[in-house]
Amino acid sequence: MEKYMKRALELAKKGWGHTNPNPLVGAVIVKNGKIIGEGYHEYFGGPHAEINALKSAVDDVDGATMFVTLEPCSHFGKTPPCSNAIIKSGIKEVYIAMEDPNPMVRGRGIKMLQEAGINVYLGMMEKEAEKLNEIFIKYITTKLPFVILKSAMSIDGKIACYTGDSKWITGEKSRKYVHNIRGRVSAIMVGVNTVIKDNPHLTARIEGYKSPTRIVVDSKGRIPLDSNVINDKSARTIIATTELMSDNIRRKLKERDIDIIELKNSNGRVPLKELMVKLGEQSIDSVLIEGGGTLNWSVLEEAVADKIMFFIAPKIIGGKDAITSVEGKGFSKVMDSINLRDIEIERIEDDILISGYIK
Amino acid sequence: MEKYMKRALELAKKGWGHTNPNPLVGAVIVKNGKIIGEGYHEYFGGPHAEINALKSAVDDVDGATMFVTLEPCSHFGKTPPCSNAIIKSGIKEVYIAMEDPNPMVRGRGIKMLQEAGINVYLGMMEKEAEKLNEIFIKYITTKLPFVILKSAMSIDGKIACYTGDSKWITGEKSRKYVHNIRGRVSAIMVGVNTVIKDNPHLTARIEGYKSPTRIVVDSKGRIPLDSNVINDKSARTIIATTELMSDNIRRKLKERDIDIIELKNSNGRVPLKELMVKLGEQSIDSVLIEGGGTLNWSVLEEAVADKIMFFIAPKIIGGKDAITSVEGKGFSKVMDSINLRDIEIERIEDDILISGYIK
Repeated sequence: MEKYMKRALELAKKGWGHTNPNPLVGAVIVKNGKIIGEGYHEYFGGPHAEINALKSAVDDVDGATMFVTLEPCSHFGKTPPCSNAIIKSGIKEVYIAMEDPNPMVRGRGIKMLQEAGINVYLGMMEKEAEKLNEIFIKYITTKLPFVILKSAMSIDGKIACYTGDSKWITGEKSRKYVHNIRGRVSAIMVGVNTVIKDNPHLTARIEGYKSPTRIVVDSKGRIPLDSNVINDKSARTIIATTELMSDNIRRKLKERDIDIIELKNSNGRVPLKELMVKLGEQSIDSVLIEGGGTLNWSVLEEAVADKIMFFIAPKIIGGKDAITSVEGKGFSKVMDSINLRDIEIERIEDDILISGYIK
Repeated sequence: MEKYMKRALELAKKGWGHTNPNPLVGAVIVKNGKIIGEGYHEYFGGPHAEINALKSAVDDVDGATMFVTLEPCSHFGKTPPCSNAIIKSGIKEVYIAMEDPNPMVRGRGIKMLQEAGINVYLGMMEKEAEKLNEIFIKYITTKLPFVILKSAMSIDGKIACYTGDSKWITGEKSRKYVHNIRGRVSAIMVGVNTVIKDNPHLTARIEGYKSPTRIVVDSKGRIPLDSNVINDKSARTIIATTELMSDNIRRKLKERDIDIIELKNSNGRVPLKELMVKLGEQSIDSVLIEGGGTLNWSVLEEAVADKIMFFIAPKIIGGKDAITSVEGKGFSKVMDSINLRDIEIERIEDDILISGYIK
């Protein structure tokens, strides 16, 4: 039976990057051991997975079984409730991977189905479903974006040589992989030093995906007005700053249609926790941090990161003065350092991707 | 058929740490699809694998097949030639994983067997056999020790916090693994700073293995006379130094039965390439470098390392002033950095061991 849920999870993934801040959902309808309908949540505001699966059915769904990766909704949102549609269709049992994480509605869809006499089985491949929607779960329960810290380094932890040279530490396939992640998140964040040094475009160069919002953390307004993130209009840019930015720069940024989020400075820096609250209010459900070592440290120190993705190249750069993936002050004791859990390792050509979650 | 060679390789491994500077060899004798004899090279100077296998045979070996991980020897060394014994035994075919890497004798054993009418098949599981004897192959062909650079670090490349604290970055199982490696090599090498800072014993705390020779690289004779490597007599200690060591220290070390290798200094440092030549002359076939970031850089810069073993803990330590696994000057361009090949990844509880070879 799990093969059907696996298929539903695969379908769900197809919506990646198009449904934010709503969840990824897939659904499969099975009758007499055959898949007779499939669907997924394709884009934000579009019909839900269950509805698409019902519409696609090539046979009468009466008496069939549905496999769906998330509890069907019970309320009128952008679309009518899916639970009603399932009940009307004559489907007689529903396997659900996980409950709706939204505490406001959790369990209601299941209750509706059960009250209509449908057999509901909850929890098949629950862990996989939760991982698939880790962004949605964090956002819907906290209204804060899910924050991924990404870094690309040599095996000895360097993101640049002592000279600043950093091209290219990881291979082409790893860099492509990063563009893929960019296509799936709502925003990318860098420190202003990265803009000054590398002048990146920070766009998702991958077909079929729009570029996420670019966020530059720039407490004093040092961003060069001729930088690519200001002038390449293929994606939105937000400058996260403080009252330390001069009025002159503020005016010039506004003239260039750049959005500004201003917060009271904390030791001369942008307070990242408060910034995340503001970003959540703007429906930004996920942020990929691609900052240098200094921003990475701030993100970790202020405990706003949820996940790390470290791309490690089989190279040794060396150097006491080379730049490492996490700089700043650092922890004074190994015992106090950050522990990662649920580590996963993936080979990407010659590189190694280590992912993990912050406890 | 490979299962028999696999078994022979397994047997060979049992000699690990006891045969240096001679090779690890295993042999299996098969008749009518059954293993009737097994043996391995158990200790330096002891009988060879083939002889042990013949001796152990529980049935007549006449007409049987032998699987052996290394070409049988053809010369009188510490023991009579194995090829003779195989011929006399009546064995009619021999599978050999790899030729003897020693250019002085390579192919002779095979020729002897063939001339006696034995069918010889060469190359089964050759790659595995070569990996098993990577130390022996390097040593017998160059008279230089095989050098392994080992480091234990956080995922951001730190081997100590900015305060110097480094206990414990990796887990217990990784540290045990290191003791295992120590039991298999002829020598461990550290920089004098590690002795000053950590005062380690550098012994192999693993049952059934003797501790390797400890080598301290100390160009100016700064080693504290009360340090454990001087006073713990359970293993031999060599101080590798230069003419910059004072006569007073030299005398005191000799009084304590510490061996000294003195080389002409190169920019105030011990020239590592020359040191390796001297160690090879003393039958040291393998050196495990457990130095700090500075020694690690010297080893890489002077191109004396063959293999790296980096134990990575799922921790983030951070810090611009924290100590990384490879310090020194470092490479000025990513393009010029050291590339590793044949990367292998192993999970050791929560830690990740990345091994690779230097091109």
